[in-house]
Amino acid sequence: MPNPPSETLLRQLAESLGPRGFSRAPEDLKPWLTDWRGRWHGRTAALLSPETPEQVQAIVTQCAAERVAIVPQGGNTSMVGGATPSAEGNSFLLSLRRMRRIREISASDNMLVAEAGLILADVHEAAEGIGRRFPLSLAAKGSATVGGLVSTNAGGTQVLRFGTMRALVLGLEAVLPDGSLYHGLSGLRKDNRGYDLRQMLIGAEGTLGIVTAASLRLVAAVGSRAVAWTGLASPDDALRLLRHLEGRLGDRVESFELIPSNALELVIAHIPGTRAPLAQAHAWHALVEVTAPAGEAGAEHSLAAALADSLDRNLAADATIAANEAQAQALWRLRESIAEAERKQGASLKHDIAVPVSAMPGFLVSARKAVEGLYPGCRIIAFGHLGDGNVHFNVQPPADACSESWLSRPGGDVSDLIYDLVTAAGGSISAEHGIGQMKADALARTADPALLFAQRAIKAALDPAGIMNPGKIFPG
Amino acid sequence: MPNPPSETLLRQLAESLGPRGFSRAPEDLKPWLTDWRGRWHGRTAALLSPETPEQVQAIVTQCAAERVAIVPQGGNTSMVGGATPSAEGNSFLLSLRRMRRIREISASDNMLVAEAGLILADVHEAAEGIGRRFPLSLAAKGSATVGGLVSTNAGGTQVLRFGTMRALVLGLEAVLPDGSLYHGLSGLRKDNRGYDLRQMLIGAEGTLGIVTAASLRLVAAVGSRAVAWTGLASPDDALRLLRHLEGRLGDRVESFELIPSNALELVIAHIPGTRAPLAQAHAWHALVEVTAPAGEAGAEHSLAAALADSLDRNLAADATIAANEAQAQALWRLRESIAEAERKQGASLKHDIAVPVSAMPGFLVSARKAVEGLYPGCRIIAFGHLGDGNVHFNVQPPADACSESWLSRPGGDVSDLIYDLVTAAGGSISAEHGIGQMKADALARTADPALLFAQRAIKAALDPAGIMNPGKIFPG
Repeated sequence: MPNPPSETLLRQLAESLGPRGFSRAPEDLKPWLTDWRGRWHGRTAALLSPETPEQVQAIVTQCAAERVAIVPQGGNTSMVGGATPSAEGNSFLLSLRRMRRIREISASDNMLVAEAGLILADVHEAAEGIGRRFPLSLAAKGSATVGGLVSTNAGGTQVLRFGTMRALVLGLEAVLPDGSLYHGLSGLRKDNRGYDLRQMLIGAEGTLGIVTAASLRLVAAVGSRAVAWTGLASPDDALRLLRHLEGRLGDRVESFELIPSNALELVIAHIPGTRAPLAQAHAWHALVEVTAPAGEAGAEHSLAAALADSLDRNLAADATIAANEAQAQALWRLRESIAEAERKQGASLKHDIAVPVSAMPGFLVSARKAVEGLYPGCRIIAFGHLGDGNVHFNVQPPADACSESWLSRPGGDVSDLIYDLVTAAGGSISAEHGIGQMKADALARTADPALLFAQRAIKAALDPAGIMNPGKIFPG
Repeated sequence: MPNPPSETLLRQLAESLGPRGFSRAPEDLKPWLTDWRGRWHGRTAALLSPETPEQVQAIVTQCAAERVAIVPQGGNTSMVGGATPSAEGNSFLLSLRRMRRIREISASDNMLVAEAGLILADVHEAAEGIGRRFPLSLAAKGSATVGGLVSTNAGGTQVLRFGTMRALVLGLEAVLPDGSLYHGLSGLRKDNRGYDLRQMLIGAEGTLGIVTAASLRLVAAVGSRAVAWTGLASPDDALRLLRHLEGRLGDRVESFELIPSNALELVIAHIPGTRAPLAQAHAWHALVEVTAPAGEAGAEHSLAAALADSLDRNLAADATIAANEAQAQALWRLRESIAEAERKQGASLKHDIAVPVSAMPGFLVSARKAVEGLYPGCRIIAFGHLGDGNVHFNVQPPADACSESWLSRPGGDVSDLIYDLVTAAGGSISAEHGIGQMKADALARTADPALLFAQRAIKAALDPAGIMNPGKIFPG
């Protein structure tokens, strides 16, 4: 059990970090003590904002000596309370937001070395500035930071072709729980020197150390892109459409997002300036993005041909292709506003789940039936990355329920039911959001015992005092 | 320190595994107690050849109880003594070669689930049988097994586009050192349930458990491929040529292998039926493979145009494109026979190293100068995967030296020098072969202290009795 910091430690940190690096002022702390969805609330002994890896090292070394806990935080966009400290207020909140330098960027090496606090949108912009692309994007790109993306193995809307962060991190620099600095930024394409510490830190949610910088893989800039919106009768049809497009276009298919009619309706109701892209209503939709490299046939031409063929084969009921970049952005806005629209509608139960891709259409039908059967009046909004076997299976309370109390009960039972169904289907209770504090108990309940044993052994070995982001991944 | 097995354990295993699964007969054991290069020789208490994961579990559980060591072995193609037991003969040699079923194969899921003993060439064939491809290949494909490829994070000649095993393993099944079975085969494309045990086992060389099966990623079959051989003045020119081809052809460039004139001469001298592909002699060569998806412009056409342009720009001195599959195979045979030709020439010091790609041309010049300056008469044969920043930097003893004694001294000093140069360049002393017993001391000497600390802590946490492949990765 970690300790509260001593007055000496507080004084030393205040002195060494200076006024911009150390604060206990409530107005400085407030925005960072609650997650963006407003579900978790914490307290902290102080907000530490180091500017260099050496400062992070000094903080961790001193905290290790006193067994004081540290909660690392990037853009504070966690969906699972992964960056919110606990309520007792003894831990430090360590913000990486002042560490936002681009240390190196190279078109010929296809690599960008960024500090942990750099925002994803700035990574995109820097890569574009040298004629390259960082091929990972998500709705929170204006706030999410490199360190958070690494520590949660972020996924998003382009995983189909380029994979999650795990596939895009070429190297890491991190401060381990004993205060030592791991120098692993050199970005080697092949490196078999024993266990891959980099892969261990990716997705560890700050529980094994603090990522201070990452070498990121860049890819060739897109020559052209095309975005389409299709109307579909069922998730089964959506999967058939995806397979058909992949068969024709290979890995040019970069995104394939499944959107049910109720999610689209929610967006149109709550997000100003949005409208349905197709004239008729459809039970399901898929947002498809296709790219083509520079110097090859345009993406729009390929996508149009493939979609025309799909309509002929009755794989889709209707489709429209964005005629320009503004229309493309408008289609993407519909997809990326779903979480925001859900929030405006009211609190709901969120389940970021995965099952094997080919099992997803069947799962969507059977899980909906199971939940609606046992909890009448619930409304299920299931949308997301069909091509990755990953949907956000969210449940809105019945209209007549007091939503806050419903969310805890029977909400907890609804989530348990969904996680049991996912586990029985060989799936994951956390596809891309991580475990944080929200799913720590569910993980302990549902995970393979061998996996749990190994995870706990690794945590105890690397962080014996339990000071790194306590209560996350493992129940507090 | 592990124990020798008791007579009771030997009797129980003989009984439960039966005559095909248990042997102490010298003629059964002999082929597996020495590595294929003949550099390491070991002894074993018995050769165990289980047929099911449950049998592996039973073996490990009993060995854990008695603290008896186990050396897992696949195709016995390690370059670093990773699958050879130690000389004292107390450990079991556990062969996975009887576990070679394909449990599942699916074109629509682009996945093949193979048991650990399946040979790589059989993986290739099974994937081709359903119109797909498993995009990893290496010279030992006729012997190397899935379990070995996973446990060494194998690379090979197609890493440029598709990555090493780390990028191609979608799921694993493994027996952990306490005998528990980790069920992780479901092949989810996204799964963020805490630390990634799968990535921890990939490249762990059997020191954290025994991989019994893997879910492998398949990709679309190749529509067409083209293979070229180019003559070059220097590694600098080779890198310029690679960047030029990538700029024009993107990830259609699947292989880019650098071959010096002395390696080509060695192959022609020792491998029957081989000949130089170009009329003139060149100091360096690059073997290039380009593919194109089905339904798109042929690979030969793209490669020919890009190479013609390269010749015009003086990026290459000469080039020839294979006119048919037999010629393509003949070009690849030149590359894949280098290790065999080196072996026929006599023993040499092998260094499988990586540095950042853009640093490799300079490294090749400066490292050669350093070694030849300090050890006159040595001959350096440096070839391999330039596009991955990975070459095999091998050193032949001076012609007048007694090669066996030279290899240990000054050979050891030569290797130390090379590893120091690599480390100073931010590189890796093992790019793709792993650490095994050959490089355990060198790793302990050169690795980042934080990395070593974390690796040792993880090993001690998961295998406290030290029974899994002792003496590999960590000095014995």
